[in-house]
Amino acid sequence: MKFGGTSMAGTERIRRVARIVRRQQAAGHEVAVVVSAMAGETDRLVTFCREANPLYDPAEYDVVVASGEQVTAGLLALTLQALGCRARSWLGWQMALHTVGAHAKARVTSIDTAALLASMAAGEIAVIPGFQGLSQDGRITTLGRGGSDTSAVAVAAAIGADRCDIYTDVDGVYTTDPRIVAKARKLKYVTYEEMLELASVGAKVLQTRSVGLAMKAGVRVQVLSSFIDDDAAPADDIPGTMIVSDAELDRIMKDQNMERQLITGIAHDKNEAKIILTRVPDRPGAVAHIFSPLAAAAINVDMIIQNVGREKGETDVTFTVPQADLARSQALLEGQKGAIGFNRIITDSKIAKISVVGVGMKSHAGVAATMFKALADRAINIQAISTSEIKVSVLIDEDETELAVRVLHTAYGLDTASEAA
Amino acid sequence: MKFGGTSMAGTERIRRVARIVRRQQAAGHEVAVVVSAMAGETDRLVTFCREANPLYDPAEYDVVVASGEQVTAGLLALTLQALGCRARSWLGWQMALHTVGAHAKARVTSIDTAALLASMAAGEIAVIPGFQGLSQDGRITTLGRGGSDTSAVAVAAAIGADRCDIYTDVDGVYTTDPRIVAKARKLKYVTYEEMLELASVGAKVLQTRSVGLAMKAGVRVQVLSSFIDDDAAPADDIPGTMIVSDAELDRIMKDQNMERQLITGIAHDKNEAKIILTRVPDRPGAVAHIFSPLAAAAINVDMIIQNVGREKGETDVTFTVPQADLARSQALLEGQKGAIGFNRIITDSKIAKISVVGVGMKSHAGVAATMFKALADRAINIQAISTSEIKVSVLIDEDETELAVRVLHTAYGLDTASEAA
Repeated sequence: MKFGGTSMAGTERIRRVARIVRRQQAAGHEVAVVVSAMAGETDRLVTFCREANPLYDPAEYDVVVASGEQVTAGLLALTLQALGCRARSWLGWQMALHTVGAHAKARVTSIDTAALLASMAAGEIAVIPGFQGLSQDGRITTLGRGGSDTSAVAVAAAIGADRCDIYTDVDGVYTTDPRIVAKARKLKYVTYEEMLELASVGAKVLQTRSVGLAMKAGVRVQVLSSFIDDDAAPADDIPGTMIVSDAELDRIMKDQNMERQLITGIAHDKNEAKIILTRVPDRPGAVAHIFSPLAAAAINVDMIIQNVGREKGETDVTFTVPQADLARSQALLEGQKGAIGFNRIITDSKIAKISVVGVGMKSHAGVAATMFKALADRAINIQAISTSEIKVSVLIDEDETELAVRVLHTAYGLDTASEAA
Repeated sequence: MKFGGTSMAGTERIRRVARIVRRQQAAGHEVAVVVSAMAGETDRLVTFCREANPLYDPAEYDVVVASGEQVTAGLLALTLQALGCRARSWLGWQMALHTVGAHAKARVTSIDTAALLASMAAGEIAVIPGFQGLSQDGRITTLGRGGSDTSAVAVAAAIGADRCDIYTDVDGVYTTDPRIVAKARKLKYVTYEEMLELASVGAKVLQTRSVGLAMKAGVRVQVLSSFIDDDAAPADDIPGTMIVSDAELDRIMKDQNMERQLITGIAHDKNEAKIILTRVPDRPGAVAHIFSPLAAAAINVDMIIQNVGREKGETDVTFTVPQADLARSQALLEGQKGAIGFNRIITDSKIAKISVVGVGMKSHAGVAATMFKALADRAINIQAISTSEIKVSVLIDEDETELAVRVLHTAYGLDTASEAA
């Protein structure tokens, strides 16, 4: 079980978490709980680090920021004890949760589970601070912001957990953002691949890395809300959304004699910005001059489209970068103007990316065509298109985001009242 | 060097601390720094623990409260780096600082210094969170409130430091409380024994246990202010008060051709309460029935006086306990009424203990007589007396505290303007 910062924000909320954990134990499960820091605490600690040293040493940053989860782990253990459960905390260096790589963005390599499993088998609930690990030279590391999801999946994989329940402030994964589409439905199942696409294009429920890790390790992950009434449903029901492999979902659908949906959900992302370089010489190597410096600066280029220019032997190159990296990208490209040979840079941060996601589309033609027609019918102009095996994304004007999401949600039949799967 | 919570409260103050540390390093010293949590932080964490579980598990309490020093250790290392120093943090489990005994009040047994000393010899400033250690079974322990002073002395002893400078919010140890006596003078030297008496009777500059440890290990401890201008004096001066052994102080006085003072200081303590049990049978074992249950409840009984009662074969027993333990003491004694056989309990929390402290009094008669006469001249009633080799304490009405301290400060010639030693 993993609880996020909103669920751990203060004594009362931690008590609620403890009751949810106790209920799982009472249902006969051995339980390990991974916790985030109280909401706002990591930001507070990061601010301290920045004030102390703007160019902070990531090793000491890790010492400071890892303390937030240490506090909530101890407090949850105390609260569980107050409810009559046996419980103890296991800090990253105590388990130990071994990591490699740079401080502040370390990667989990292995977890020593012998002592942990013995304690759990003896009826003790293990409370584990998320986000933190131990480096090869015996120092505290952290896994990057949102890393507690990754901790939870890594622990679940290491101890061979039947399930990894990620409690958060939403009650599952929806067909689209319910704030935009009132008829959005909660999905009972979603595949790892779909979740990766949904997460990376704006459905920020789980850290992307944790989904990748769950897929690799075959950990069944459930996303559910910690704000549900903890006595509402039996402990083994699925109140949230279960993230499983494609093969397992096939099996489940067959067992339940149900058909899989073609499209699982519609995601949107307003955090990208568009860059157009006009009149780039249409010759070998020109494109490399554009994207190599961006890659070297760790700027994540998403969609890339090359348009034929007005003049012969020239082309317009369009691509997207995160809005936060737009200014830096522009500066880098201006510095390469001679090497690339473009005419000018046009940028637009008032764009949105809309994505239709579904494993089902692998075996069905016409998904993209449905999308283009639905948008054209409402006069929504498509500025760029990109596709993968399970996703079609388009770039549109930011002002048309909500309209586009609603139109597509209807077009793919996601509005119906039946339980989605 | 050790810095308390007031000195570590916030980015600006930590920067000031870093400048003081850098100045010591620049003077050619190898430096280890022990830090407290930011002022107020430990209280905040303790409150969380109490809210989580009023009967908290000290092992998990330690996990929670130790985080405060972890944060300041990381932040001071970052701040030192920002000033161009090399620095790294060494958490209690990393050094390791080994402890035994109960959680929340563990005792230091040994410190692994090889890696620490190698790092310091290589020019790296060691930043060590105070208050925290490692238990024999690999869990976080804490040394009790104020334990950072003990951490500092223990580290100083383990690494063979020339000096342990304890920076605090006062600039040294005074002949008495300067808020009461404007003419109170800062002492340049004080012996361990005197400091123990001064600390335990109200001059709350250092944790008592740290002074005992310094005495045992022969660590020269300096108390000084972290709010002085860090460029005011050369690094090797004594801006604060140096706590040394009796023998060393003799040597220093001889070198400087100075005479030692008879009395070092006047301390007061308003935190005690008086209990009188009337008409206790004057027979063997009666007193044991009084004090055994209090000792078993870890209630620290200080002064004990037995008065002859009005009736033959009976006696009144008077003693003091900390005010915070008064209600608990009363309840315990009422429960023992049959066994003790007293008539009634009279309590008074409006009392103060005034103590005259000085190693010099060992070799001089008349110190107590001077005290009694000075108080009698101002009609201050003495309710009880207790003496040790280097201290005379009396119990008086709390309202007369300030008057008594002033009168005694003058009576022992401590008001003069010359430098005290």
